Amino acid sequence: MNRAVKVACAQVAPIVGDAEGNRARAREAIHSAIAAGARLIVLPELCNSGYVFADAEEARGLAEPLDGPSVTEWRALTRAGGVVLVAGLCELADDGTLFNSAVVIDGGELLGVYRKTHLWDAEKLVFTPGAVSPPVIETAIGRVGVAICYDTCFPELLRGLALEGADVIAVPTNSPILTPPLEPLPIELMMASATAHVNHVCVAQADRTGHERGVDWVGASGIVDAVGRLLTAKADGETLLLAEVDLGAARDKRLGERNDALADRRPELYELNLRG
Amino acid sequence: MNRAVKVACAQVAPIVGDAEGNRARAREAIHSAIAAGARLIVLPELCNSGYVFADAEEARGLAEPLDGPSVTEWRALTRAGGVVLVAGLCELADDGTLFNSAVVIDGGELLGVYRKTHLWDAEKLVFTPGAVSPPVIETAIGRVGVAICYDTCFPELLRGLALEGADVIAVPTNSPILTPPLEPLPIELMMASATAHVNHVCVAQADRTGHERGVDWVGASGIVDAVGRLLTAKADGETLLLAEVDLGAARDKRLGERNDALADRRPELYELNLRG
Repeated sequence: MNRAVKVACAQVAPIVGDAEGNRARAREAIHSAIAAGARLIVLPELCNSGYVFADAEEARGLAEPLDGPSVTEWRALTRAGGVVLVAGLCELADDGTLFNSAVVIDGGELLGVYRKTHLWDAEKLVFTPGAVSPPVIETAIGRVGVAICYDTCFPELLRGLALEGADVIAVPTNSPILTPPLEPLPIELMMASATAHVNHVCVAQADRTGHERGVDWVGASGIVDAVGRLLTAKADGETLLLAEVDLGAARDKRLGERNDALADRRPELYELNLRG
Repeated sequence: MNRAVKVACAQVAPIVGDAEGNRARAREAIHSAIAAGARLIVLPELCNSGYVFADAEEARGLAEPLDGPSVTEWRALTRAGGVVLVAGLCELADDGTLFNSAVVIDGGELLGVYRKTHLWDAEKLVFTPGAVSPPVIETAIGRVGVAICYDTCFPELLRGLALEGADVIAVPTNSPILTPPLEPLPIELMMASATAHVNHVCVAQADRTGHERGVDWVGASGIVDAVGRLLTAKADGETLLLAEVDLGAARDKRLGERNDALADRRPELYELNLRG
């Protein structure tokens, strides 16, 4: 069943420490996406705080609880717009722990929080890794799975989201440029296409942009359909990617007459993968 | 430790039923690769038989045992050339079973046989799926893992090869054109790059070419280094891809100061993947 949904990925440029400015940037992106008819909006990883923290204390000063100003505002904006939002949040948990999280908000309701389970580099000095696999959440536009940035280097995790029934995997990300991006596409976009293709699931990835404390970003935002086709992508600068995606296609895993992307799996051959 | 090895992927055009011609095409490709200095040579899936069988009986007539003419010749050629060969074979097992196999031959010795575990489309009418995960084989040029075509849609299988220590995954493939190939790269090459990147392993993929009974082929041959960089690829026509690849890079899974492509895995989060 065709279930075309307009998806928006906002490639914004947070500034570390500028909480109010970051909130304004997110607000503006959400407004623009709603005006363009988007029903699912994805914002980058850590979009409330920025990424390149001087130390854990700086991150702590910028982290917010789930009833803090960012989530509160996002709830109001998604309620008014009737949209689903997945956004990266520098989260301060009740017990004081810091998590690199993503929230899933549907029409004003906070339906889920995912705490990044695979931390990259200096994130390990700041955040506690999440203890729970990412969720797949039933929303008004379909089933939304979540992964954050370096999580996408773990296809086992992404496969789990497909097995749990995700129609679309929303990926808030911050991809620093470490070496010259690969040609003809940054690896982060090739991985997004591969993820979509092998799982027959859509992918909506929102990277950040903007120079921050010596770090530049790949700008690997992209929207991919359930066969792996990159519908739109943009490397440089602030932008709002928009694409109409048939999320319904992800419900049918058949590939031709005799194959099925998930049923053809042979779990008995993959047991090695569970060794520590 | 840098361990540069010249790798060759031969994109040849087998003709279904032309056993002698197919053997000649393979021989010529192996000779050319040896002359060019290759130490690892990969030939496509089912390169002795062709792919588009009229029925199982035709396939049976073209299948060969492991001491048949193709493997016997490949042993002689690799002994003379001092090379490692991974080649697709339409295999007739001792008990009469047909397998879509790949052989690994090192300097004349048949070191391994992998029987494709994920069969595509009409292959299901002809072949029995292999019962065993693909091997990783210690050869003169390093540890060679094997996967065949549709197997690459199962990242769990490829991860298993990396966990078993593969330096390079050799992929004999036959990728029929089903829909217009994706831009800017066929999905089969984006998947090869993604596989290399997330596992920090090299990939050498040899696709076939040549029109066969109404089917054309993507020509998705490519050689990828351990960060996912496509060193060389060629879509159309018969060709011998050559690239110098540092197979030693695959032994070091560290990513910067604080990460490791395999050690960062969290197997306890992936258990869902083993449900049938």
